[in-house]
Parts: sequence; C-alpha cells; structure tokens
Amino acid sequence: MSPQRLRELLERVQRGETDVTSALGELRSLPFRDLGAANVDHHRALRQGAPEVIFGEGKSAEQIADIAAEMDRAGHNVLVTRLAAEKAAVLGERFDDLAYAATARVARLTRHGLPVRVAPPVAVMCAGTSDAGVAEEAVETLAAVGLEALRMFDVGVAGIHRLFDRLDQLDRIGAAIVIAGMEGALPSVVGGLVACPVVAVPTSVGYGSALGGFTALLAMLTSCAAGISVVNIDNGFGAAMAVHRMLPRGDGHARP
Amino acid sequence: MSPQRLRELLERVQRGETDVTSALGELRSLPFRDLGAANVDHHRALRQGAPEVIFGEGKSAEQIADIAAEMDRAGHNVLVTRLAAEKAAVLGERFDDLAYAATARVARLTRHGLPVRVAPPVAVMCAGTSDAGVAEEAVETLAAVGLEALRMFDVGVAGIHRLFDRLDQLDRIGAAIVIAGMEGALPSVVGGLVACPVVAVPTSVGYGSALGGFTALLAMLTSCAAGISVVNIDNGFGAAMAVHRMLPRGDGHARP
Amino acid sequence: MSPQRLRELLERVQRGETDVTSALGELRSLPFRDLGAANVDHHRALRQGAPEVIFGEGKSAEQIADIAAEMDRAGHNVLVTRLAAEKAAVLGERFDDLAYAATARVARLTRHGLPVRVAPPVAVMCAGTSDAGVAEEAVETLAAVGLEALRMFDVGVAGIHRLFDRLDQLDRIGAAIVIAGMEGALPSVVGGLVACPVVAVPTSVGYGSALGGFTALLAMLTSCAAGISVVNIDNGFGAAMAVHRMLPRGDGHARP
Amino acid sequence: MSPQRLRELLERVQRGETDVTSALGELRSLPFRDLGAANVDHHRALRQGAPEVIFGEGKSAEQIADIAAEMDRAGHNVLVTRLAAEKAAVLGERFDDLAYAATARVARLTRHGLPVRVAPPVAVMCAGTSDAGVAEEAVETLAAVGLEALRMFDVGVAGIHRLFDRLDQLDRIGAAIVIAGMEGALPSVVGGLVACPVVAVPTSVGYGSALGGFTALLAMLTSCAAGISVVNIDNGFGAAMAVHRMLPRGDGHARP
Amino acid sequence: MSPQRLRELLERVQRGETDVTSALGELRSLPFRDLGAANVDHHRALRQGAPEVIFGEGKSAEQIADIAAEMDRAGHNVLVTRLAAEKAAVLGERFDDLAYAATARVARLTRHGLPVRVAPPVAVMCAGTSDAGVAEEAVETLAAVGLEALRMFDVGVAGIHRLFDRLDQLDRIGAAIVIAGMEGALPSVVGGLVACPVVAVPTSVGYGSALGGFTALLAMLTSCAAGISVVNIDNGFGAAMAVHRMLPRGDGHARP
Amino acid sequence: MSPQRLRELLERVQRGETDVTSALGELRSLPFRDLGAANVDHHRALRQGAPEVIFGEGKSAEQIADIAAEMDRAGHNVLVTRLAAEKAAVLGERFDDLAYAATARVARLTRHGLPVRVAPPVAVMCAGTSDAGVAEEAVETLAAVGLEALRMFDVGVAGIHRLFDRLDQLDRIGAAIVIAGMEGALPSVVGGLVACPVVAVPTSVGYGSALGGFTALLAMLTSCAAGISVVNIDNGFGAAMAVHRMLPRGDGHARP
Amino acid sequence: MSPQRLRELLERVQRGETDVTSALGELRSLPFRDLGAANVDHHRALRQGAPEVIFGEGKSAEQIADIAAEMDRAGHNVLVTRLAAEKAAVLGERFDDLAYAATARVARLTRHGLPVRVAPPVAVMCAGTSDAGVAEEAVETLAAVGLEALRMFDVGVAGIHRLFDRLDQLDRIGAAIVIAGMEGALPSVVGGLVACPVVAVPTSVGYGSALGGFTALLAMLTSCAAGISVVNIDNGFGAAMAVHRMLPRGDGHARP
Amino acid sequence: MSPQRLRELLERVQRGETDVTSALGELRSLPFRDLGAANVDHHRALRQGAPEVIFGEGKSAEQIADIAAEMDRAGHNVLVTRLAAEKAAVLGERFDDLAYAATARVARLTRHGLPVRVAPPVAVMCAGTSDAGVAEEAVETLAAVGLEALRMFDVGVAGIHRLFDRLDQLDRIGAAIVIAGMEGALPSVVGGLVACPVVAVPTSVGYGSALGGFTALLAMLTSCAAGISVVNIDNGFGAAMAVHRMLPRGDGHARP
Repeated sequence: MSPQRLRELLERVQRGETDVTSALGELRSLPFRDLGAANVDHHRALRQGAPEVIFGEGKSAEQIADIAAEMDRAGHNVLVTRLAAEKAAVLGERFDDLAYAATARVARLTRHGLPVRVAPPVAVMCAGTSDAGVAEEAVETLAAVGLEALRMFDVGVAGIHRLFDRLDQLDRIGAAIVIAGMEGALPSVVGGLVACPVVAVPTSVGYGSALGGFTALLAMLTSCAAGISVVNIDNGFGAAMAVHRMLPRGDGHARP
Repeated sequence: MSPQRLRELLERVQRGETDVTSALGELRSLPFRDLGAANVDHHRALRQGAPEVIFGEGKSAEQIADIAAEMDRAGHNVLVTRLAAEKAAVLGERFDDLAYAATARVARLTRHGLPVRVAPPVAVMCAGTSDAGVAEEAVETLAAVGLEALRMFDVGVAGIHRLFDRLDQLDRIGAAIVIAGMEGALPSVVGGLVACPVVAVPTSVGYGSALGGFTALLAMLTSCAAGISVVNIDNGFGAAMAVHRMLPRGDGHARP
Repeated sequence: MSPQRLRELLERVQRGETDVTSALGELRSLPFRDLGAANVDHHRALRQGAPEVIFGEGKSAEQIADIAAEMDRAGHNVLVTRLAAEKAAVLGERFDDLAYAATARVARLTRHGLPVRVAPPVAVMCAGTSDAGVAEEAVETLAAVGLEALRMFDVGVAGIHRLFDRLDQLDRIGAAIVIAGMEGALPSVVGGLVACPVVAVPTSVGYGSALGGFTALLAMLTSCAAGISVVNIDNGFGAAMAVHRMLPRGDGHARP
Repeated sequence: MSPQRLRELLERVQRGETDVTSALGELRSLPFRDLGAANVDHHRALRQGAPEVIFGEGKSAEQIADIAAEMDRAGHNVLVTRLAAEKAAVLGERFDDLAYAATARVARLTRHGLPVRVAPPVAVMCAGTSDAGVAEEAVETLAAVGLEALRMFDVGVAGIHRLFDRLDQLDRIGAAIVIAGMEGALPSVVGGLVACPVVAVPTSVGYGSALGGFTALLAMLTSCAAGISVVNIDNGFGAAMAVHRMLPRGDGHARP
Repeated sequence: MSPQRLRELLERVQRGETDVTSALGELRSLPFRDLGAANVDHHRALRQGAPEVIFGEGKSAEQIADIAAEMDRAGHNVLVTRLAAEKAAVLGERFDDLAYAATARVARLTRHGLPVRVAPPVAVMCAGTSDAGVAEEAVETLAAVGLEALRMFDVGVAGIHRLFDRLDQLDRIGAAIVIAGMEGALPSVVGGLVACPVVAVPTSVGYGSALGGFTALLAMLTSCAAGISVVNIDNGFGAAMAVHRMLPRGDGHARP
Repeated sequence: MSPQRLRELLERVQRGETDVTSALGELRSLPFRDLGAANVDHHRALRQGAPEVIFGEGKSAEQIADIAAEMDRAGHNVLVTRLAAEKAAVLGERFDDLAYAATARVARLTRHGLPVRVAPPVAVMCAGTSDAGVAEEAVETLAAVGLEALRMFDVGVAGIHRLFDRLDQLDRIGAAIVIAGMEGALPSVVGGLVACPVVAVPTSVGYGSALGGFTALLAMLTSCAAGISVVNIDNGFGAAMAVHRMLPRGDGHARP
Repeated sequence: MSPQRLRELLERVQRGETDVTSALGELRSLPFRDLGAANVDHHRALRQGAPEVIFGEGKSAEQIADIAAEMDRAGHNVLVTRLAAEKAAVLGERFDDLAYAATARVARLTRHGLPVRVAPPVAVMCAGTSDAGVAEEAVETLAAVGLEALRMFDVGVAGIHRLFDRLDQLDRIGAAIVIAGMEGALPSVVGGLVACPVVAVPTSVGYGSALGGFTALLAMLTSCAAGISVVNIDNGFGAAMAVHRMLPRGDGHARP
Repeated sequence: MSPQRLRELLERVQRGETDVTSALGELRSLPFRDLGAANVDHHRALRQGAPEVIFGEGKSAEQIADIAAEMDRAGHNVLVTRLAAEKAAVLGERFDDLAYAATARVARLTRHGLPVRVAPPVAVMCAGTSDAGVAEEAVETLAAVGLEALRMFDVGVAGIHRLFDRLDQLDRIGAAIVIAGMEGALPSVVGGLVACPVVAVPTSVGYGSALGGFTALLAMLTSCAAGISVVNIDNGFGAAMAVHRMLPRGDGHARP
C-alpha cells in the first residue's frame, strides 16, 4: 500500500465515505502487503517470467503432482528439479504435456507461455562429461526463464585447447555458468578470459580428496580470477537463477 | 590476430613484401595474442574502466609503491586492497594524492579519470557494524570501477525491521552486495525481497561456532532463496568485482 | 529418601518396631534413591508427567514391544521415537491402542492418563515443508508431556511475510521450537521477535554445503539474536523435552 | 500499535479531531512498530529489565564509551561483555560508577535501577577452575537481568562426589547453566539429576583433541540426558540470556 | 636366535661339527628371526596365548575359511572379528565346532587349548544397550586370550546411580574397558573412580553431532581424568588386545 | 561405609547407644564417602604414590605457588606440568628445593618421599628430536610416580635401523610410551616388536598436512598393530599416568 | 607445428608452391596443435605408449563400449579403470579379446602393440591384502604403458620383517609405488630404505579414525622421509601414470 | 654384510683365525648393517650427492650451528631449511662462507664439492609472486643436489597466456615443480601440456576458503591431469628431493 493509497483511505474515513471497521480491515493486511509478503513475491514472479519451482527430492510423485496441478491452476508454469525418472513417469501419466529432461532430472510443464526475453545467450560450460547432469539442470532452468543456453561441455583445464577452440563464442555471451568437479579449476581460467559475469558451480564428481564436491567448491571460492561468484555443489538450478537475476527481463523493462 | 590479418600477412609473404623471417616473428606471438594473453587482458581492462589491483597483504610498502608507480606510468589508476595503515602512511609520502580509506583498508590513486557509467546504484548491506570493514572495501572497489554504492549498514536479521524500513530504497538498486558474519542469514532475507542480483559475502566476524566465517559461508551457499551467489570470506573486493561484471559498462556499450 | 523418612526409619529401629536386617535392606538402596538413581528418576518422571521413552532406531520391533510392555506394566505411558512404519505395524498387532504418527515416526501408548498441565501453547515452527517430520516429532513429544503445540510450518526467511502474518499468535506462546535446515536462519529472526524461550533445531534438510545439518547447527549456535539455545540435528524430541523442563508442571506446583 | 489504538486513531480522524497528515505520520511507523521493529524491542527490553548489551571485542574504548553514554542518556542500564581490562580502565575514567568484573571481563553501568524479580536462583556450575571466566560472564549477565546466581565451581565429572555433595542445593534452583571444557561431560550428569532447564556452555579450555571447545560443544549436543540445550563456545552471556527468557519476569506478570 | 644359540652355532663351526654352508643357511634367516619377524611374532603369540586374528570385513566366507584352516593346521586357535552372520553360517558348515557370537559378530575356533591365566577379571562397561556389540567383541577377544570379562552394561552417565550400584565390583577388576557412544562421558567418570588401567572405546552410536563416533573419540582423548587411553571407534577387539598387553600372561611369567 | 559398619550403627541405635540425631548425622555423609567422593580419591592417591598435579597453563605463578603450598602442607608431593620458564623462576624463589626440568616444562617439589616401586623400566621413545619436550614430560611424570624411564630418542621410522639397534633393550621394559609427530608411524612399528603395553602419544610437530598433531593422532588410532592405545596430542603426562595405572604399585600390593 | 615446419610453410607460400587459402587452412589449427591441444596430446600419447583411458565409474557399459570402439578405430589401445564386473561382462561380449583383471577392476584392449620399453621394474608394494585392488590397478596401468611391476604385497610396518626380507629386490627397482590404508606408514619406511622415486598411494581401507583414507593421505604427505610424493586415495592408476612420467620411454629416447 | 663377507667370517672361525667371541661381536651388528641402517643411509647419501639437511624451525641458532659443524667435520655439505633471518645472521658469524638465501629462508654450507650431474633443468613454476618463497626453497634444494632450476614465476591460470608464452622452454625440462596457493589449478594445466614428471606443491597463500593451503592441496590431489603427484603444503624442499629421486645421479650411474 503506497502512501498515496493510504492517504486516500484516511481521507475517505475523514469524509465519512468509509467507516472505521472497514478501514480497520483494510489496514490489517497492510504490513504484509507492503512488506515483501506473498503477494509481492507473486507479482514479482509473474513479472519476471520465473516459473514456480518444486524441489523433487524427498517428495512422492503424488505430492509433486498435486503441487504442480495447483500451480498450473493458478496460471504458473511449473519446473520440477531433482526429479527421478520413476517419479517423472508417474507425473507423465497425469500431465501428458510434461517435458522431462532425463540427464537434467528436470521436468517442465509450460502451459502459460514462456517469457520473451531479449538477452544474449548464456554459456553453460562444464569440465567433464560427468558434469553434464548439473549442466543440463542449468540449461533447463535457463529455458524456463526465457534464456538461451550455449553448451560448451568437456572443456576442462587438463586439455585447455578445447576451451581456446571456442574463444570466439565466448565473445558473444551474456554470462557464463562454469561447472566443474574434482579440482574445480575451470572457472579461474574462464574468468581470466571473459569480462561478463561468471557463476561457478562445483560438482560432486570425483572421489577421495574431491570430498564430494567440497574441494571444487573451496577452489572456486578461492579463485585467483577476480569477480567470480559461486553457488552450492551440484546446484545448476541456482546458478541459472543467479544469471536470471543478472540479465534483462523478458518484458523489455530495463533492469533493474 | 584475426583471420583477416592472417590472410593479409600471408599475402604479403606471397607478394614478397614481407620476408620469411619477419613473418615468422610475427606468427610466433600469434597464439598468445589471440588466446587470451596479456594484451587481451590489457585491452579489456582499459575498456571496462577497471583499475589495476594490488593485494597489499604480504608485500612491503616499498614493493607496493614500486608496483603502483609502474602502473601509474602505464596510464592506469591503482587500487590497493588489504593495506595496513602503516604501509598506507609510507605510500602517502610517495604519492601525495593517494586516497586511503582506513576502515576499508583500501588505497586509491586516481590520476587517469574514472569511468563514466550509467548504472543504477549498488546496495552494500551489512548485518552488523563489525562487518563495516568488508563493506567499505566493496564500496571503494565499486567507486574505482565507476559504480555508486548505497550503504545500508547494521540491518541484521535479529532486528529485521531495520531492513524493512529501507525497502523502498531496495527498489532502485541494480544489485545488492549483502555482507554478514555469524550465522550469515541476511542474504536469504534480502534474496526473498529483491529481484536483482544478490552477491553474498561472509565475514570472519564471530567466535566459536562461527568458525572464522565458514558458518556464514556455508549458510549463504545453502540459502533457501534462489539465485544468490557467494564469494570468499571477507572478500568485499571480489563481490564488487562480481557486480562490476554484471552491470552495464561505463562506455555506454550495451553489456552483452 | 527424604531426611524425614530417614529419621522415621531410625526412630522405628530405636523403638524396636523395625529390626536391623529390615532397616539394612531399606538403607541398602539409599545411595541410589538419594543420588539421582533410578528411583528418583522414576519419581520425578511420574511427577512431571514425562513418559518413558524408547529410541526406536537400531532395535527390532520385538525388542521395542518387550520394553514397552514392561513399561506399561509398571504404569507408565510409552513414547517410541524414530520408529519406522514397518516396526510400528508389528507393534500395532501387539498393542491395538497404539497411536502411530507416521510423519513424526513416533508411536505412543497412553494407557495411564496424560498430565493435566496449565501452560501456554508451544509454537512449533519450521522453515520448510521438508522439516515437517522433525516438527511433528516435537509435537508428539509435547503432547506426551501434556503440552499443547501451535504449528507454524513453512515460514522460512526467504518468504519472511509468512512469519509476520502470524505475529499475533506469537504473543500467546510460552516457548518456541524453531526448526530449520539449509542455512538455519529462522531462529535468529524469531529470536528477535519474541521474548519467550526459543529452542532451535537444525535439520538435515539440504545438500552439498548444508553438510547434513551442520551448517544449520553452526548457524543457530552463532545466532545474532541473544538467548537462543540449540539441540542436536533432527532432534525434535530433545527440543520438546527442553521446553518441558522450562514450562510449569502439570501438577500445579510452581516451577522450578 | 494495538488494534484498539488503531481504532481510536481512525475514530479521531472520522471525528475530525486529527487531520489526515498527522494520522499519516502516525501510521507511517506502524509496520515497524507492529512488526517487531526497534520500538517493540525497546518496549520489550524495558518491560523485561534487560539492559542494552555491547559486545566489547573489536571496538575501541572510545567507541564503547560513546555507545554506552548514548544508552545511558536513553535511560538504559549498560552491559559490556568481552571487555579487556585496559579498555575497562579507559571507560572507568569516563564513568566513575562503572563496575568492572575482571574474571568475567564484563562491565556494568547500572544507573536506572535493576529489575525486581521473583524467581528462584540459577545454578552456574563449571567443571574446572579454568572455566571460571565464562561462568562469571553468566553470573554478571544474570545479575543485570535481575536474577540471582548460585555458583558451583570445579564440580567436574572426574571427581563426581564434588557434585553430589551439593545435590540438595540443586533442588532449589530455577535453572542450571552448566559450563565445561575438555570432554564436556558435566551437563549430561547434571541433566540426569535435575528436572529444571539445563543450558550447557562449552568452553575453549583444553588443547589438542579439545579442538578449542568443539569437542565439548559436540558432546553436549549429543548428550544422553534428554532436554539439554546448548549455546556457542564460551558464551556465558548467551546462556544467561536463554535462562532470562525462561524464568518469570521482574514485573510480576506471568510468563509468557 | 638368542645370543646363546648363536654362540653355540659358532662353536660348532669352530669345532668342525657344522660346515660353513650349513651355518650360512642357518644364519641367513637370522635378521628376520632376531628382528621381530614372523617367527618371533609366532613364538611370542604362542607364549602369550594370543590366537591368530582374521578381520572378517571385506573378505569372502571362502577366503576366511581357507585362512582359518591354514592357521588351524599350524596349531593356532582362530579368532574372526567383524564377521557377518551369513558368512558365519558358511564357515559353520566347514568347521562344525566353530563358536559364533552373533552380537559380537565374532567367531572362534578353539582346537588347541586356551591359555591358563592367573589375572583379575576385566570390567567391560558400556554406556547404553546400543554399545553391546562392541562390548561383546571385547568380551570374546578377552576370552580368546584367557581373560575373564565382567560385564557392566547400560551404566551411562545420565543415570549415574547405575554405575555407583556396582562400585564394589570395580574394586576387584584388573582393568576396565569403557565403551560409550554419543558424548562419550563414561570413561571420565570411571577414571575418577578406579586406580587400574582404563581403556576407552568410542562407538558410532548416535546421530548428527555424534559424528559417527568422533565426538565420543575426541571427548575421551580430552578426558579430565588422568591416565585414560583410547582406541579407534568401535574397536572392542583393540581394547581387549591392549588390556591383554597389560595383564600377566597365562604362563605364570611375571609381566613384562 | 561398609555394610558391616552400617549394621553396627543400626545396632547401636537399636540398643540405644546412639541417638537418632547422631545416627542421622553419620548417615548424611554416607553417600559421599561411599560413592567415590573426595575421600576415596584422597586415599587412593596416597596409596598409589601419585603426587597432586597442577596444570600450569593459564594460571599465574602466584596462583600456582598458593596451590602448591597448600598441597605441600597437606603432605603431598607436587607436580606442575606445562610450566613456562618465567613462572618456574617465580616459583623457585618461594620453594628453593623446586626442581624444574626446562625441556619438559615440568616442576617438581618432592618433600614427602618418593614411592619405592618394584617395576621394570618404561621405554620413552620418540621419533624425532623435536618431540623431546613431550618425552621429557613423560619422563618427569614417571619419576614422580616412582617409575624409571629408559630414553630412546630420535628413532623414527625413516631411519628404522636406529630402532633395531636397541631391540635388546626393548626386551627388558615393562611398557613403552611411543611419541611421534608428523605421520606418527613409530607406534605401529614398535607395537609389532614388543609384547608389553604400548601407549602412543601424537605430537604437534610438523606443518601443513600434519594438522597440528591430528594426523599423527588419527594414524595412531588406526594403527595396524593390535593393542596400541592413544592419548591426547602432546600429552606426555597422560601417557605416563596411563602406564602408572598399568604397572605394579610401589607398596608391593599386587595390582589391581 | 615446429618452427622448422612453419618456416617451410612460409617458404612454400613465398615460392608460390602453396596458395594463401591452403596455408590459411594449415595455420588455422596452429594454435591448438602447438599449444597443448588435442593433437599434441595425441602425438605425445602415441610417442609415449600411453593408451587412452576411460574412467568406468558413472558410465553405462554401452557408453564405455562406444568410446572404446572409437578409440580402437583411431588406432589406440584402450584402458578402462574402475570397471565393475557386470559392465566388464557386457563389454566382453562386444570385444572378445578384452582382458579384464577382476581384482584391479581394470579392462584392457591391446590391439595395437605394447610399447617396448627399456626400464627397470617398478615395485608395487602394499601394506595389507585389502590394498590389493588398488595395487593391481597400478600393475595393470604399468603394463599398459610398457612397464614391468614387481609385486610386494602384505609388507606392512606392523610386521616390518616381511619388508626387510625383500630388501635386495628393492635394489633393482626403478621406482616404488607404495600403497597403504589405515595409518599409511609404509611409504615412510620404504622412503628411508631406497634412493629411487617413491609414489605413495593412500587407500580407503580401515574404519573410524581411518577416515576413509584421509588419515593415510595426511600421514603420507607428512612423511618424515624426504622426497616422497603422493596421489589421491585409491588412485593406483594415477600412481602408475606418475611413474610412467618418471621412467625412460619405450622408444629408446633419453628421458626427458 | 654381504653373504660373501659372512662366509669369510665363518671360514675364519672354522680355520681358528677368529675366535668365537670376536665373531659374535662382529655378527651382533649384522642386522643393522644389512638392514638399511645408518651406514647404508650414509653411503647412499654420499653416492647421491645429497647434503645433510637441518630443519631450522624450532631449533635455536646455537643448536643448528652445532649440528652443522658436526656434519661439516664428517665431510658433508649442509642445507638448513626454514631458517629465519635472525638465526642465519648468528650462523653467519660462525661460518663465514655460509650462503643464505633470504626469500627461500635456506642456508647452505658447501665445503665438500657439489655433485656434477648430467640432467636436464627442472622447471620451478609458481602461480603468483607470493609463492616465491616456496619456489626459492625448491631452487636452493635443487642446487644442493646438483640440479639446475629454470624459474617460471607468476604464471597462474587466471592469466594463462603467461604460461603459454614459455611453452618452448617446457620442452627442454626434465621435471616440473609446480607451486600454487589459492585454488591450486596450475599443476592441472601444466600436467596437460608436458610429458615429464610434475610434482605439485600447494602453498599457504590465500585467506578464508583457501584454508591455509588445504584447498590447493586437495585440488592438486584431485587433478584431472593424470600422473601428477603432490607433496605437503609449502614443502618446496620435499618437491626438490622428490625430483632428485627421479633424475639421473651426478655420478653417471644409470638410475635407479
């Protein structure tokens, strides 16, 4: 409730057009509407073209289906992450237009139009083929918010030429999501080559001293290339959402 | 070296205008020039208005002064981070126009003009007053790349109203650098309130289970608010550089 | 054995009403009764209305059933925590009045009356729906000691308005059990809003840098809100027992 | 602002006794007053008799003195924790009625009356004499909120009789703050002996596998005695504040 | 080869009773026999009554059976630790006099007589019933080296009276193996009550901050009771072998 | 209080020789005298010839001197561990017969006779010369409880022959205290060579991956030689006290 | 492309023997060929006799088979590491000359000749039989690069004589791969006995404080024997490849 | 003692030229001479040209000087690592030909000739200028064993062109010591570019998530480039000694 609307309400009370009880009711919800409550989130979500997201792990297929159905009824596209293939099959019986990306373990239900967005493509780079699942999760999430992904897989630093072969592509991107397990060195190299935002994603690929992704996580946080930021291990979704915050929205409004 | 320039070189050899030894010399540096070598970094630095940066820790005042003098001669502004007051005093004797921000422990030498940049302000928020040093490091770095900072200090979650009091300011920012020690909860709250990029900076403020900043670091990486990215502990500089990558450059060129 | 009863015993010996051997037998258990031994625990348990508790993990259904039967025979209500559904089914065959709460994984056998307790309700708050199992374990334990729970689920800090919507409810509670996984920020926010005891429970919800609940645990211990105390990861039972220690007993005696 | 006061305001507007601009001004701070903002904290603080608290580490004596003076002007008692003796000496020059407890490293300025509080004493127990500093910090904090401490020092489990010698004292307490370094076993033993709230405080006493207090912290969180809650390492202040939340307030109002 | 036997060999060479080549052959194995090699181990093993030990984890039932058969042929009793019930069943078909202790997960084949040993009993104490498996592994190992175990189970510190009830038994023991999971406090209490050797065994019982036994391990190493030594997590076998080193051998020879 | 004495007391009450109040007084202290309280510790200490021990770290020279004087008055020898040279100098002024071992950082005051003890010598072995301080702490502690130490320094595994050179000495020892930093491998080798008790002491010698002694600690706990037990990092005192528990007492009483 | 070949190309252009477009094509791949790109790797691989390597974990048998077939077509031998027996069976149906070493979990397809290599044998030593799998992975990898392995299994430090028995064999080796789990002490002993390169491999053998191989890893990195280097836990392949880098190549060229 | 010498000894006993007691004395030291004892180490050291090494940390200048003097008398060159400048000054007064390298913190006393060694140069590469101290320690150690170092400093991956600029130099080296702090990515890149041995050295350069060098250590152990081996944090000495083991000796003998 803007100050202007508040003033109008008070003036209506002053003029006797609104009685005290009605005004009181209107004021009751004031703090929540004005303070970043559910409604605000809702409106922002719609404006940004971000779908509602369901974290698929630890929920049954039925629970996911119910939440998805409710979202769909409310007019939202649905994105389900970390969704096992078996659950996806169950969901597919209920929503025959459900699109399931197996490598990404992501399902999407897109019945309400995708945001049209004028933004450069986002490089989704990964060091090894084992990182592909995380990379595809990022790709699917980018698609869900109207962004185009440019895949650059298997360009790890032990064969650094594979990256250099694609340097000209890097000149055209709006941001880079750089995914690596093991020693997590790729973001440092990429950060030294491009000027755009670089979001690093460690993966749990590797064994022993890879520490389930923590070595890559720590290495990325300690990168000698300035201005790299990092998300949680295996969090392709989070990296895509971080990039989503960085690039111009689909409604043509200047960001911010 | 673009294919076009390479073709021209070969044609000059073909036409006898360039002899083989000269061409060989020109080709020798080809891989380095074209592959992200020093020159490229250089040009990009100039184009972006990013100053050269000296990490002040572990270097003597004399070493820092020599590097700074060399950079200055090469036409660059100079930014020195993590610079103790004593060393700053020594530097101040050599460069009388050196600006030293004591809380930030940052020194700047700005003899070559600052980039003019059309970008919204960047909120630099911190949870407690003890985080101010890291926050000011971010503010100084932002200034050095031509970005305006909007300070919101001491808005930690245990007194959440202090943050809500400034919600309308948050509507105008281009990005938020959110700094917190101890339990590191502020970025999650901010991330739920704004749509712009949020870069979280854990600080080493706290004792015992604060683990020298690791608790805040881990908490931020695990944030329940989607799309937050994180930099190293106490790395105000890195957060500012990450935001620098995200916002439009000072030269008016559209950021891809 | 109170000094009064000890005196009476000695006087009976003095008066010849009790012979030495009988007195010796009565005194034999003296150290244990007076020093916090089983009997004392017993008496205190009865007085407080706390049921006997069986930790269900790592015991077979048969073992649990035998222990429960013995407790029941001794006149105690029985509470079984961390009880898998399969084991609960086996127990159900033996005790047809067994109440099993599936989400909480808690079974209760209440054949000896619940304590009547005059105490304000206890808010059981959790950040996300995935924390519900731990929350329900707390709710069931509270019920077993005669305390009423006020559920406030899914009020995590990334949507902080959901919490504010229920502020007036917080004014009526006697204590808050605040449950959160991932970055564990909710207790800090709640701690800043209420004056009553806040017991924080980290959960193992999350992946990667959530560290199986340790990030939330460390964050809660480092909370910037003063006077929050913490229990083990996923320990909804322990939090309820801590609150049980804090609130007035069911027998109307003033606590302490 | 209570609904009643809000209704009165609206009625005054309706009756023309308050004009719209004044009412608007009064309403402007509404969200913050009603939502747990500074004012509320303020009022609650006054009502509870909790002094304002300054964390003395990492602040200069001058900064601390300035904050204390401002608080004093606002009518609050002042409590400064983790205050080194040298800084305390400087403060003492400015406030000649400053009371500094050297072992506790706590200073208090009590110019506005202490809360009169009808509550049982709080046992402050510690395992060894090296834990005395943390214990005294708890004692000073308890005093500042109007609670009486019952010191039981050096009652560690390796000489368990020292504890049993004082069992009858434990019958009279309202809560126990149990402080231990090294293996942190004391709270488990105490928790098995008393029915009142037990707040465990690990200390950084010990070397090697004591891990600077983390071994005691982990041990306390894993206690086999039900209903023990834990605060951060060396956090005697936090434990006292937790107990402050648990015991009846000084104004005679029934808690909650 | 003792110096005496070496002298005799040389004298035989001197007297011509042994030729050089034979003496050379006899001396060839000298370094290994005299330097703690297999033979020495062998002899010591026989003299001490220690059976050969097979670590059953990670070996197939067939492999274990083959090794056991070979040991048996060489005249040794056999002890198999960490042996799953399924494998024990397979072994039982091959050795019908195999004794398998299910809780201990230990199998014994005792065809060559047990050492007769004059030594006081060894208390095997554990904090909770969940520690019984580790305790029984210690009991079985003690039996295999001719030592008598005195079981004291479920005497954890949260019900400290259960321990005190058996204080007189503690006066008769030769050593105590004290087993505890969770916070691992029992050895500190026992160490303060007895003068004999105390070997502490942490167990992996517990969850969350129990850290799979590391909290108990660290707590035991940091015990405030002097002279307690510790073995690996769940290592009942190792504790028994440590006690075996401490007590008089079965052959009546004074130890050492 | 033995059952016999308790019976006598009751009979005296029965016969009227003791009145109820006196009997009550006598019974009051029963639990503490009989249950491992201070007296018991006292008597045991005297019987074992163990001196009272003061942990010198974190205490002022004056505090240490006062405690030592009190112990001396009570007829005990005094052992002060981890005592810095400066504090020792202060103590030396007060007690001119104080013996300070600088490498061990141990001071001893032996005015009440040392226990005469018939026990084999204890090998105190260390891997490198940097471990000498910890080794000497063990030697001094052994001396204080009447045990003879056999020093074997600098016998680390990278020059394994240095150990083998002294194998015959190992045949005569009653126990081995084996001290090592860095990779902590020495106890495993020694454990394979001797049959007597082996107490391993990790030291904080080393850098980087030595983890301040934790690598050696973990390695020793994981030793492939059976029956080795371990004490805290740098805890030469604790190892000596553990051996003190293992060897026959000085009073000629059979242990236990 | 060597400078010599580059000069020749330019001279051909100069002489008109090669037109500009052809030269441009030849130069296009220059950066990658000359800068460590795939081609270079290829050539080096062929020259060194190193086969292409497939990490078998996390790939389906079909994927592995496809990659192997492609490599085979390109003229390379194939080495698959960490290949489960089930997958090996599937591969065996497609490649009937596939050699699968079950203990090593390594498959090899050797259709293009093994490198003939004049190099001393490589000792592959392991501490216990449980380390055999890692050891065999090293042996298979050595074989694939033309190196002979000298197996020395079960020579751990607790029975140090087993190692000494084979000292003369150690005099003939070119390098030692020393594999150990648990406390990881073997490399220190070996490093003190031989002058050749020692590559240490920690294994995940052990439980509790073995930390899944990290204790051995840390111990090896902290070895008191100078000049030992270490690879990742269980990485027998990596150790063999490290030795492969150290020993003379199979083509008779002096290394380097 | 070789078999030949042993046979001769026995024959002398047989012929009566040596009596039994003398032979016994000669045989007594047999195990040590033959089993890798001091003498063997000695001989090997001389043969390899490796100087004796003193770890300077934790020793006084006087102690170091005494050890050095003794070594010098025995005919060895002396290498002192981790020697602070102040101690070096003291040593310099005693040995006026002592060469102290300040950055390396290494002192050398070379009075007995350096080994003449035919071996290719060793690249000593480091990622940043802060790693120079560790790099120089490696350089000094290499010099002491007769190996030439080729310095390549400040070639970190964020400016990868700096490395590529020197690729042709890498073709000539015999081994690479690759030193990096922070994310430790350089060895992976170098390992992909060269075929010779690569020894990686993590450094403690960096803050926060650099974990004092452990992030680099873990990253290097997890390198995606095959055949890299790793030494302890900051261990430039160890890396040089590892390379020393790998390259041909100075005496022209074929290695091994």
